Amino acid sequence: MELTDLATLSQPSERAILLLVLDGLGGLPLEPGGPTELEVARTPNLDELARAGTCGLHRPVAAGVSPGSGPGHLALFGYDPLEYRTGRGVLSALGIGFDLEPLDIAARGNFCTLDGDGLVTDRRAGRISSEAAAPLAEALDAIEVEGAATFVRHVKEHRFLLVIRPDTELGANLADTDPGQTGLTPRDLHVTNSESEPAARIVRTWLTEAAAVLSGQPHANMALLRGFSRRPSWPTFGEVFGVNPVAIAAYPMYRGVARLVGMEAIEVSDDLGSLVAELAARRTSHDFFFLHYKAPDKAGEDGDFERKVETLEALDTILPRLLKVGPEVVLVTGDHSTPARLGSHSWHPVPFLIHGGEDRADGVTAFGETACLGGVHGIVRGCELMPLAAARAGRLAKFGA
Amino acid sequence: MELTDLATLSQPSERAILLLVLDGLGGLPLEPGGPTELEVARTPNLDELARAGTCGLHRPVAAGVSPGSGPGHLALFGYDPLEYRTGRGVLSALGIGFDLEPLDIAARGNFCTLDGDGLVTDRRAGRISSEAAAPLAEALDAIEVEGAATFVRHVKEHRFLLVIRPDTELGANLADTDPGQTGLTPRDLHVTNSESEPAARIVRTWLTEAAAVLSGQPHANMALLRGFSRRPSWPTFGEVFGVNPVAIAAYPMYRGVARLVGMEAIEVSDDLGSLVAELAARRTSHDFFFLHYKAPDKAGEDGDFERKVETLEALDTILPRLLKVGPEVVLVTGDHSTPARLGSHSWHPVPFLIHGGEDRADGVTAFGETACLGGVHGIVRGCELMPLAAARAGRLAKFGA
Repeated sequence: MELTDLATLSQPSERAILLLVLDGLGGLPLEPGGPTELEVARTPNLDELARAGTCGLHRPVAAGVSPGSGPGHLALFGYDPLEYRTGRGVLSALGIGFDLEPLDIAARGNFCTLDGDGLVTDRRAGRISSEAAAPLAEALDAIEVEGAATFVRHVKEHRFLLVIRPDTELGANLADTDPGQTGLTPRDLHVTNSESEPAARIVRTWLTEAAAVLSGQPHANMALLRGFSRRPSWPTFGEVFGVNPVAIAAYPMYRGVARLVGMEAIEVSDDLGSLVAELAARRTSHDFFFLHYKAPDKAGEDGDFERKVETLEALDTILPRLLKVGPEVVLVTGDHSTPARLGSHSWHPVPFLIHGGEDRADGVTAFGETACLGGVHGIVRGCELMPLAAARAGRLAKFGA
Repeated sequence: MELTDLATLSQPSERAILLLVLDGLGGLPLEPGGPTELEVARTPNLDELARAGTCGLHRPVAAGVSPGSGPGHLALFGYDPLEYRTGRGVLSALGIGFDLEPLDIAARGNFCTLDGDGLVTDRRAGRISSEAAAPLAEALDAIEVEGAATFVRHVKEHRFLLVIRPDTELGANLADTDPGQTGLTPRDLHVTNSESEPAARIVRTWLTEAAAVLSGQPHANMALLRGFSRRPSWPTFGEVFGVNPVAIAAYPMYRGVARLVGMEAIEVSDDLGSLVAELAARRTSHDFFFLHYKAPDKAGEDGDFERKVETLEALDTILPRLLKVGPEVVLVTGDHSTPARLGSHSWHPVPFLIHGGEDRADGVTAFGETACLGGVHGIVRGCELMPLAAARAGRLAKFGA
């Protein structure tokens, strides 16, 4: 269902919604036929919630597709990630918590190496260390061009963010300067429509200045830009679901994607107790709470099955305190699977549970991938979870007469 | 997910994929509550593959829709048959293995009967026998018109294929001449855009000649044309999934639909051993193999439950030899259901299994319609199977950052 349809159906309700995201929740068994991380973890409180509520699995993007964090969270917010797409520049800004303003044009930058003939010999400047790259990014940040403010922020290793903040609204259909392979010169900055020519002139000037700043550096003697994009103007989460939403997250990426859909975003420490405290502090001022818990994904990415189990057990111990704060409808799931066995995000469906509101019983008595297969919801798309939670909270009116 | 998106995500992998299509695989019980053909068949090797792998069911086109062979196979190749459509003329050419060239305009022809006033009295010329119709098609094949080569091939009974091969590219938006009911004259050949007028002139000339050739025949004294179409230019299967694909099939229809998506196609005999030999011969030169096994569909179409059981048991006996050749990921399914009880293609979901690559366990221990309902994949669309197989083969990169 389109967001505009959902917005039409949304109606007020006393019942608040808690979306608790255990990042990278879904897993795989270490041995064929064995239990996953979640199935090994002792999670009596999640199990009880699964037993009292209803369960299923979701595909964040599509069958067989491993989601990035951006698309995975957009899906959980109800935004179909195949439809609601953001450029690499905007994602880069989100990832480091750079607040994009409406006129801003963001690009993902790479430090690269050019030889004496101006040909790219390394598109990542020898994967230059963060320590070496950060001062270079600072030097680029000092560049001044006419017609726009420009910002450069170091991201990690060879990666940086460039933001052009023009004085007036400019077209932003700018092609990548990254030639995509070595042995070629960086591409001249091309535009795909004439309205983008003023922005192109600004970026060309910036590139000339950047070349001068980086000239003489042993590795990172030039910058390649790609994914020019502007913060999209989408229906806000608050409009779509008729709620006053707040995101509570320790990492900038997740606050960024929440702000992208118009949520207020609160920074917390990595400590689980602070999630409870921040939720409690906003219990009366807001009626939708997105809580982000990063630890399971990090353990999964590290290929550490045991640690992922422990992160889930740790979350389980604070669950009663979260529930005591009292949002009436609780949705617990992940933005994608991160099986320790693979050490990466994967395409496998993610278990979810919904507690609160009216539904039929399913026989699920534990929160786990295999158990959730037997849940009443079956396998749904990630962007279908929010409508299910909203319905359970009495927040969706009848469609049609 | 769009094919262009999949193409962006596809990445190289050492793992090859075998798509083994048991045509018309899905069935129905003879008595309510009884077993299907597949459930009656003793298939220890398929059962073992289902046990070690993961299972589900797929809908080739849409809920309640019985697929033709073309759409059924397009779905298995990852092409949504609701989006990727071919005209009846092109399907007719595929069905008899006529190799369409890019400029060719194909139409499905029917021999029909006109009365003395030129009104259609039978749109199928009394369902004229193949023996009687073949010489008429040969006579039509001899027609020569200016500006194009023309080809006529008999298909079956009153059906034939007309191909116009113009000297230069011509528009092909030509309307049917079949009036769709008796008591009317054949429709004049109309065009829906002016670029198609040159092709229309050629077809009108051909129709005049055809009327002269058929004049005086007792039943088949005229031809009706419909479904004018050109071979579509779609993204190729190789581009979309980043593989070097080969189709191995005994029947022209299936080689034709494989060629339509750019696969190389190899003709084999009906003998199951030759499927193994041809697969083995291409094990190193290709990394995607589509093997087609026609027998279950033929038995189903004949309403022969026992013979369909036998065809599945026969396939099962050669499965170990196919697996020994060794593509790392194996997908076994059908292009649609052909229950012997109905004697026709049907809309019932088709069981599938995927073996190889990482996944969770399901409790499925036998390959059958009811057992597959408990599989980890649930019920998916037919066009989602290839992304699932590609993911298992490590051939799909992460979507978004």
